[in-house]
Amino acid sequence: MAPTAIEVIRAKRDGQRLDDEQIDWVVHAYTRGDVADEQMSALAMAVLLRGMDPDETARWTRAMVRSGEHLNLSTVSRPTVDKHSTGGVGDKITLPLTPLVAACGAAVPQLSGRGLGHTGGTLDKLESIPGWRASLSTDQIRTQLADVGAVICAATDGIAPADRKLYALRDVTGTVESVPLIASSIMSKKIAEGVQSLVLDVKCGTGAFMKDAAQAKELAEALVAIGRGNGLNVSALITGMSVPLGRAAGNALEVSESVEVLRGGGPSDVVELTVALAREMLRHAGLSDVDPAQVLASGRAYETWQRMIAAQGGDPDADLPRAAHTHVVEAPTSGTLATLDAYAVGVAAWRLGAGRTRKEDAVQHGAGVRCLAKPGEKVVAGQPLLELHTDTPHAVEGALDALREGYSVGNDSTSPAREPGPLVLDTIR
Amino acid sequence: MAPTAIEVIRAKRDGQRLDDEQIDWVVHAYTRGDVADEQMSALAMAVLLRGMDPDETARWTRAMVRSGEHLNLSTVSRPTVDKHSTGGVGDKITLPLTPLVAACGAAVPQLSGRGLGHTGGTLDKLESIPGWRASLSTDQIRTQLADVGAVICAATDGIAPADRKLYALRDVTGTVESVPLIASSIMSKKIAEGVQSLVLDVKCGTGAFMKDAAQAKELAEALVAIGRGNGLNVSALITGMSVPLGRAAGNALEVSESVEVLRGGGPSDVVELTVALAREMLRHAGLSDVDPAQVLASGRAYETWQRMIAAQGGDPDADLPRAAHTHVVEAPTSGTLATLDAYAVGVAAWRLGAGRTRKEDAVQHGAGVRCLAKPGEKVVAGQPLLELHTDTPHAVEGALDALREGYSVGNDSTSPAREPGPLVLDTIR
Repeated sequence: MAPTAIEVIRAKRDGQRLDDEQIDWVVHAYTRGDVADEQMSALAMAVLLRGMDPDETARWTRAMVRSGEHLNLSTVSRPTVDKHSTGGVGDKITLPLTPLVAACGAAVPQLSGRGLGHTGGTLDKLESIPGWRASLSTDQIRTQLADVGAVICAATDGIAPADRKLYALRDVTGTVESVPLIASSIMSKKIAEGVQSLVLDVKCGTGAFMKDAAQAKELAEALVAIGRGNGLNVSALITGMSVPLGRAAGNALEVSESVEVLRGGGPSDVVELTVALAREMLRHAGLSDVDPAQVLASGRAYETWQRMIAAQGGDPDADLPRAAHTHVVEAPTSGTLATLDAYAVGVAAWRLGAGRTRKEDAVQHGAGVRCLAKPGEKVVAGQPLLELHTDTPHAVEGALDALREGYSVGNDSTSPAREPGPLVLDTIR
Repeated sequence: MAPTAIEVIRAKRDGQRLDDEQIDWVVHAYTRGDVADEQMSALAMAVLLRGMDPDETARWTRAMVRSGEHLNLSTVSRPTVDKHSTGGVGDKITLPLTPLVAACGAAVPQLSGRGLGHTGGTLDKLESIPGWRASLSTDQIRTQLADVGAVICAATDGIAPADRKLYALRDVTGTVESVPLIASSIMSKKIAEGVQSLVLDVKCGTGAFMKDAAQAKELAEALVAIGRGNGLNVSALITGMSVPLGRAAGNALEVSESVEVLRGGGPSDVVELTVALAREMLRHAGLSDVDPAQVLASGRAYETWQRMIAAQGGDPDADLPRAAHTHVVEAPTSGTLATLDAYAVGVAAWRLGAGRTRKEDAVQHGAGVRCLAKPGEKVVAGQPLLELHTDTPHAVEGALDALREGYSVGNDSTSPAREPGPLVLDTIR
């Protein structure tokens, strides 16, 4: 006899393990509507408070994968590898990384989402390029992978529909902050995507979902365990997210910065993390002998970028949208920029129009924050520190509010400039 | 600024106390539909797993009372007092008790519910009396209280609508078994009913919701604390429910037994508990000098019963419905009946048609179980032990299944007859 929703809820509520049959049944019954939203939210709360062990989490993930279609990439001759980031401020790494790893010889199908909250979404960024289309069919994805080696597009509706439904529910029921639920949500989509290898970038710090190293490590280990249990080559880098990545947060602003990196310039932290992640991806793909730093410098990654954008209807040479209005924040005193808080910058960019409050909202392509100085750099009183971009000038006040405690300038005589910490904090293999 | 649903859910999820504003807001917003079912079920699960302290529970109760109307009984000149039972098998005590306490000089407005599950509902029982109506308007309740002193009727729709909505939600989301939620549900309805005094009969044993004495005491203390915090004279008896009360479980069968008690006969346990509860109610009503045992013996309680039934359209002298089919279970051996399990008898009666599975179902008025022997009584092999009544003979097999482990006959030479324990286990004042 099939389990009932109440039996499954009670079992988890009372601290029991859910068995495979219970997990498979409840995930599928929820997907087809036989388990009601109010029942799944009670179960999600019980999971959040009682936990799931690695075996339960792996089974839950598999049930979500099986709720939809599994992308078949077996016709792609190159090794397939993907990266997933848990989300950070100014985290545009997917943009240079995908064409870079493709230029090194792998195939990279990056199925992405839109942003909700302060961290921005990869598709929102690319949509600032005139003509670029996020939606591809499965066949188009396979063809582009064979031709260009690089695809960044929207996940098709058939991918893990159970996760899409559950994610929306968790968002409104206070049941987001559960490592087993976060890990199974991420991994169900990546497993359904059909790649052979996956590198996870688990962000840690004020601008990330995981605020401290212990939480980040717990999540990284859960993600790696699920991936391994599903036959993926998988590893995770834990990387710092207390300072924005690079010098831009916001859609077109981040595309510009990514193009700088692909052309051999750009901020050193963006270059460093792009190359570190590429190296890890190439290791999984059996391409350890290729040096991504060299490929980046050669211009071949930039060529792949141009082909990737053009294949999806975009004009890689077009001018990007610019916001109608800018506002400059000046350094209050001379000294060294001591702090620049990722969360504050993320919220400011979001308030300026770079992000959305509800799924239905549109984003402003030109909106965001440019960071003209980064921690450790010397500044002079009155020098521009931050440049706010928006089409809606009334949004500036809210952005300034968010930034008020978000930066500080240290007096060199009393507090010598601190070197920023390492970007890659740990690697979980 | 008003709290948001997610803030309230998160606070309780993370083990915080909810403050008065949060409780008032979430209960009222849920009642008017601004908090969704899936949000309230996540909160209910968090309350179940994290608990609520007595102050939170009292405030939650008050918010549910205030979600609807408060019955005004100030025009009733007699002292008003009510009883509430947490539900047991064969628990027909409300039927003789209400007219008995009225005959002793108090006014008893017993707003009752229909049964769901194995314990039966007071309104279902009385509806087996030809012509009797459960629905009264507020004015009719007040008039009948003044005239007869006794009313048993359905709670009006205006009473604690938040509780009605939440109760239905908890039923399908595995969030029933929470002492703060059970206690606030019971007390919100009783407080809204507008009585001065209340006696609670908290059942304890296999046939009750609370299986052990510690749980029953926890619930009794929570109920008394809420009542006292809302200005009621309130106390609780904890009474045994491992053996059915009396010798009948089922609607018309229980009405017959109640009439026997009102006419001076009936099973001794039903008489004992009726008198014990009446004494406690009269104590609160300032009528301690009246002896309910004497009033019962005098026939005045029976007269009040007849007037109460007639006032609601019922014919107290009419023949009661009888089931079309009976099946007898005989004693397998000679000896002493050692056990007769309340839960087994309750499930059997329910399967025979005395109860309902869904709110929409009708009950069979004649269906149920008569217990021809009670534990401690001598039986002879082949003697009738249990009589099953139903209109649907195919239901007998399921009832027999439920009863299979539900009774046992002891061999007198090896296991001497055990005296049944006391009926009133504890009093919480």
